[in-house]
Amino acid sequence: MTEISTLGEFGLIGHLTKNLPINHDSTVMGVGDDCAILDYSKKDVETLITTDLLLEGIHFDLTYVPLRHLGYKAAVVNFSDVYAMNGQPRQITVSLGISKRFTVEHIEELYDGIRLACEQYGVDLVGGDTSASVTGLIISITCVGEGEKGKTVRRSGARDTDLLCVSGDLGAAYMGLQLLEREKEVGKDDPNFQPDFAGKEYLLERQLKPEARRDVIAEIAELDMHPTAMMDVSDGLSSEILHICHNSNVGCRVYEDRIPIDYQTALQAEEFGMNLVTAAMNGGEDYELLFTVPLTEHEKVQHMKTARLIGRITKPSLGACLVTRDDAEIPIQAQGWTAFPK
Amino acid sequence: MTEISTLGEFGLIGHLTKNLPINHDSTVMGVGDDCAILDYSKKDVETLITTDLLLEGIHFDLTYVPLRHLGYKAAVVNFSDVYAMNGQPRQITVSLGISKRFTVEHIEELYDGIRLACEQYGVDLVGGDTSASVTGLIISITCVGEGEKGKTVRRSGARDTDLLCVSGDLGAAYMGLQLLEREKEVGKDDPNFQPDFAGKEYLLERQLKPEARRDVIAEIAELDMHPTAMMDVSDGLSSEILHICHNSNVGCRVYEDRIPIDYQTALQAEEFGMNLVTAAMNGGEDYELLFTVPLTEHEKVQHMKTARLIGRITKPSLGACLVTRDDAEIPIQAQGWTAFPK
Repeated sequence: MTEISTLGEFGLIGHLTKNLPINHDSTVMGVGDDCAILDYSKKDVETLITTDLLLEGIHFDLTYVPLRHLGYKAAVVNFSDVYAMNGQPRQITVSLGISKRFTVEHIEELYDGIRLACEQYGVDLVGGDTSASVTGLIISITCVGEGEKGKTVRRSGARDTDLLCVSGDLGAAYMGLQLLEREKEVGKDDPNFQPDFAGKEYLLERQLKPEARRDVIAEIAELDMHPTAMMDVSDGLSSEILHICHNSNVGCRVYEDRIPIDYQTALQAEEFGMNLVTAAMNGGEDYELLFTVPLTEHEKVQHMKTARLIGRITKPSLGACLVTRDDAEIPIQAQGWTAFPK
Repeated sequence: MTEISTLGEFGLIGHLTKNLPINHDSTVMGVGDDCAILDYSKKDVETLITTDLLLEGIHFDLTYVPLRHLGYKAAVVNFSDVYAMNGQPRQITVSLGISKRFTVEHIEELYDGIRLACEQYGVDLVGGDTSASVTGLIISITCVGEGEKGKTVRRSGARDTDLLCVSGDLGAAYMGLQLLEREKEVGKDDPNFQPDFAGKEYLLERQLKPEARRDVIAEIAELDMHPTAMMDVSDGLSSEILHICHNSNVGCRVYEDRIPIDYQTALQAEEFGMNLVTAAMNGGEDYELLFTVPLTEHEKVQHMKTARLIGRITKPSLGACLVTRDDAEIPIQAQGWTAFPK
């Protein structure tokens, strides 16, 4: 194990960023100067920028999250925000605050995960900042991407009668987190404790190694669909639906029986005695895409492999409601993850 | 005083980003979606990106740094990196990690400083992320700027016989820090202690409210000068000179008697019994611009109001040396601020 102080800041950065590939021609110059230089000068291109701050003890727990997975996830959640604009992620900067308990090898693992995510998604790591921290690991990633002018999709474009769709399935990442938290609790007094996650691999994967839905964006383009509003599901479906309703000044109806849920999620909710729909609506960290399309694209939605119809947009006066299996209308409330718990 | 949990994450962000102005036409859409949308699609434009992570207890001490100044400085140090590429800062994203001891009013003060810096420099605040932290304040700012294609200046372009120049004066911010640290020490057991900073205002200002040298870039353009290499002085002149020498594969001679030092810095060094040149060469946080120009621009350098000649670039085999007043050559070593002290 190598103490970070033996390399120093510039030594560590040099070590971590050695042989960084450049995947995209919009990267003119990467790591190693006061700024990275990018080229977004093509006529029909809009530049997208998003940033996420991940803090140990708040967003992740290293007792059960491998550093490699953490790095991968930290990058991917930023890519997800770019796809959510109907864009393509191109570059990231990575800032790290590192406390004394981390060694060079630890940070290498973290960086391996970040580099792998960049490789998988064709993104270039072009800069960052590295510092000691007083306590804990701090990861701040900013992602730059590109969208086609006139084709980037905001949260504010949903209109009455639009169809509401979501990709993949919901609630699994939340169940994975509950599972990991429980096993941590069970195993904390027993150094030989080995958790048994057989049959629950999907839940863990969704929590520990989520993917960003590049394939959904690709299918939307393939089917020549025109989303009117879009965002990614990071804080829970309820919270995100309310954002779209608020920003677009519309209401909506979401059909309980249309909410996509994996069977492992359902089994786990039963085991935990949790309400499955509540978990799926409020769990968060799904990194699925929630979007609306005009009613005229109904047939295209039916052909989508990566997403499904879950409801419809209404006039604002009707509010945002979940329609239960027995046709009751329950107002949707954001009960998802909150950064500042009371 | 308002606890942050009473507003929640989205309430706090909404509160802080209310009525954010948009100063520059490259900002298409700011805060409030998955990404901000920027437009860098002009033909001769390069996009610049830089990021800085500031951590309480490592980079700043809130016992003597007002939050408003901290916000201003956190933004300005990023602008400085963009000017150091011969570019113009245009947008920033601001991510904050906030521990329980901070109230809404505290974060308002911090934001006031960030907004003031943006106003002064014509930069738009377009996004960010806000979260609780376990301990301390975390500030991660990313700045996007633009440069003219072919006119951005890297660290790697210095050539033998180029002239080495630096703007402003050096060592004052470091002296300001020493002064604040001393007064903190002296006053720590006396609640009624009032430090007397009369005659030392410049040192405090350089430490607490530095400016980025937009005026130097303007003068370089005005005089039609063509810097071959440039960077900002954040970790100390010695450290930055070695970066330019390393990246450009050159050596240099810096003349001790040419190093610009303010008289308050000199007085304070004497009071502290410190070596003045060492402090000026290694102090850091000056945010001045260090640059090289071809020998043919010697006359233009002599006309500069914002910068002066301090040395010359040599063949790499001659190494990087400080030439003392009595003509001794001392190898330059980076002794400046280090993120990972041994």
